[in-house]
Amino acid sequence: MSSSLRPGVITCKAAVAYGAGQPLVIEEVEVSPPQPNEIRIKVVCTSLCGSDVGAWLSQSLFPRIFGHEASGIVESIGEGVTEFKEGDHVLTLFTGECKRCKQCTSDKGNACQNLGLERRGIMHSDQKTRFFVRGAPVFHFCAVSSFSEYTVVHTGCAAKVDLSAPLEKICLLSCGIASGLGAAWNVADVSKGSTVVIFGLGAVGLAAAQGAKLRGASRIIGVDINPRKAEQAMKFGVDEYLNPKDLDEPISQVIKRITEGGADYCFECTGDVSVVTTALQSCCDGWGTTVTLGVPRGKPEITAHYGLLLTGRTLKGTMFGGWKPKSDIPLLVYRYLKKEILVDEFVTHDLQFEEINKAFDLMKGGECLRCVIHMPK
Amino acid sequence: MSSSLRPGVITCKAAVAYGAGQPLVIEEVEVSPPQPNEIRIKVVCTSLCGSDVGAWLSQSLFPRIFGHEASGIVESIGEGVTEFKEGDHVLTLFTGECKRCKQCTSDKGNACQNLGLERRGIMHSDQKTRFFVRGAPVFHFCAVSSFSEYTVVHTGCAAKVDLSAPLEKICLLSCGIASGLGAAWNVADVSKGSTVVIFGLGAVGLAAAQGAKLRGASRIIGVDINPRKAEQAMKFGVDEYLNPKDLDEPISQVIKRITEGGADYCFECTGDVSVVTTALQSCCDGWGTTVTLGVPRGKPEITAHYGLLLTGRTLKGTMFGGWKPKSDIPLLVYRYLKKEILVDEFVTHDLQFEEINKAFDLMKGGECLRCVIHMPK
Repeated sequence: MSSSLRPGVITCKAAVAYGAGQPLVIEEVEVSPPQPNEIRIKVVCTSLCGSDVGAWLSQSLFPRIFGHEASGIVESIGEGVTEFKEGDHVLTLFTGECKRCKQCTSDKGNACQNLGLERRGIMHSDQKTRFFVRGAPVFHFCAVSSFSEYTVVHTGCAAKVDLSAPLEKICLLSCGIASGLGAAWNVADVSKGSTVVIFGLGAVGLAAAQGAKLRGASRIIGVDINPRKAEQAMKFGVDEYLNPKDLDEPISQVIKRITEGGADYCFECTGDVSVVTTALQSCCDGWGTTVTLGVPRGKPEITAHYGLLLTGRTLKGTMFGGWKPKSDIPLLVYRYLKKEILVDEFVTHDLQFEEINKAFDLMKGGECLRCVIHMPK
Repeated sequence: MSSSLRPGVITCKAAVAYGAGQPLVIEEVEVSPPQPNEIRIKVVCTSLCGSDVGAWLSQSLFPRIFGHEASGIVESIGEGVTEFKEGDHVLTLFTGECKRCKQCTSDKGNACQNLGLERRGIMHSDQKTRFFVRGAPVFHFCAVSSFSEYTVVHTGCAAKVDLSAPLEKICLLSCGIASGLGAAWNVADVSKGSTVVIFGLGAVGLAAAQGAKLRGASRIIGVDINPRKAEQAMKFGVDEYLNPKDLDEPISQVIKRITEGGADYCFECTGDVSVVTTALQSCCDGWGTTVTLGVPRGKPEITAHYGLLLTGRTLKGTMFGGWKPKSDIPLLVYRYLKKEILVDEFVTHDLQFEEINKAFDLMKGGECLRCVIHMPK
């Protein structure tokens, strides 16, 4: 390709965060052309995930463009890119797959050593940013930054998807819904007839519930301190709802009693590490398994009494539900198209890009499962 | 059976502990006859386990007869017992198997709900003791109390073994060696070619090493602060020895470096809960699994940074290596007789009953793997 054909800088709108908890500011940003092994994407839809809100409230790297759960169309490709072409439909991946490292070449793990979760606000390849506002660099989020009309991602951080899949829905498979399903299928490996407890009935928790239901769990108990979460939870497989605030005794005691010894599987989807301990206490002896999915906003230390483990419990963590991101996510899209999994039902709000701060308010207030933000056409 | 044929009280020698850390006193005890579903055993050999020492040093229930890793011969049976008869050879079980509860009837767990670890110093069936000194009750330990010429156990807390198996060796399969082997086989399910780290090179840790070796682990790293543990460790499959005291950087960093990212499996066999965190840190992302076996003597709270889990690690606890005690232990004895597993090699000292306090000294000083205490003939 001659240099004259190489893509240039794009000037477009992005929602820039300038400080922890401060409303995002929509303004013009310059988006660099994709570098080798990168693609530039026109973002079509981006849904707001709890991790965006958590990072926006608690982290210190600013100015920054958040957003990591998104769908889009390839606008241009960097040098040497053969896997993607202009016009391909893609989902962004907040944790990538290089397909070469020890993790990617094993069938057991998905913690890619080269394109894993990028916490420094920069791109994996050159530790620089692709965004500038008035000449100054703007940090990325998870090397995705989808709260922009255009963004640049590594080819390992995008999954090509079927052109027939509705981008305004499948963006949810880019993070939250996939994480929940994968936690039930890949990580816990929920078995038929089992008893499951979901702590936290947000989108991730309900996706875990759906995953457990599809595996044939016979009883799924949903726990949340927000009673508004109860009704919609039933759509996703939750059979019973418990609100710890309504109980006179610890929730783990109630669960142990009504399940005659504890659940087979507990999923911690709140991001409050103290709930990990509660979840372990709510599991049965012998084989009770707690899977943690929530990304903690506060104290990051888990504490658990050793005796909980000694009697045979397992505690597992997971990033992105154990999915190999590039390899597996297109298959999840396929299963959605075949109507095997619910996705549309998680979308409680559709908002235009200029309303993005409203999405943050809804998520903070526990008013939504997923807000899909539609970028300008 | 007429009541005149029922067994009576036996007066014999037992080693009684009267206070935390105080030398045991060998004196005459009265051992009650076995109650319904119990058997009385003439103890032949009892090996000293770290948990005996830990409980003796830290617990407050006295007077008490410790000992839980033992072999013996059935002396008499309680009412309704059909499974055992006088003269049967048995191993005692510190955690039993009722064969009826949710755990026992599942193929997944071994945390029997009726005959699990008894911490109150009494018998499961009637919450009383079977030992008396000068008319006063003496507490049991794990409902076994093998530091006595005769003891009474529930039929669910004894496993009948092959008459040809040497009782002075197979007593080790009653707890420590079985726990280590089971941790590698049943709990971690170590795979061929994997990298394994053993924290704590006592008998349990070395049994886990042996288990990993027999599964085809390609690299087994042993960690212990006592350099005397290094040489004998090689017999059980340990390939390399690391002493944290010799290192200028944290042991987990060294392990991550030399294993290129961390071990596949770590086994915590020290009983120091802070080592659980070190073990998790020493595991690889994605699928790294830490199994905890050590019974903590001090602070019982495990603390771990959430990020260690988020990247896909698993933490598993286990009681007795996941074995179904009554069902599985006779098979381990069979494998020993077929020379498939090492047991004799763990016996570093043979002592007579009257030397029992020397066994405690050796264990406290890290001077032994297993001391087998031979009861009077």
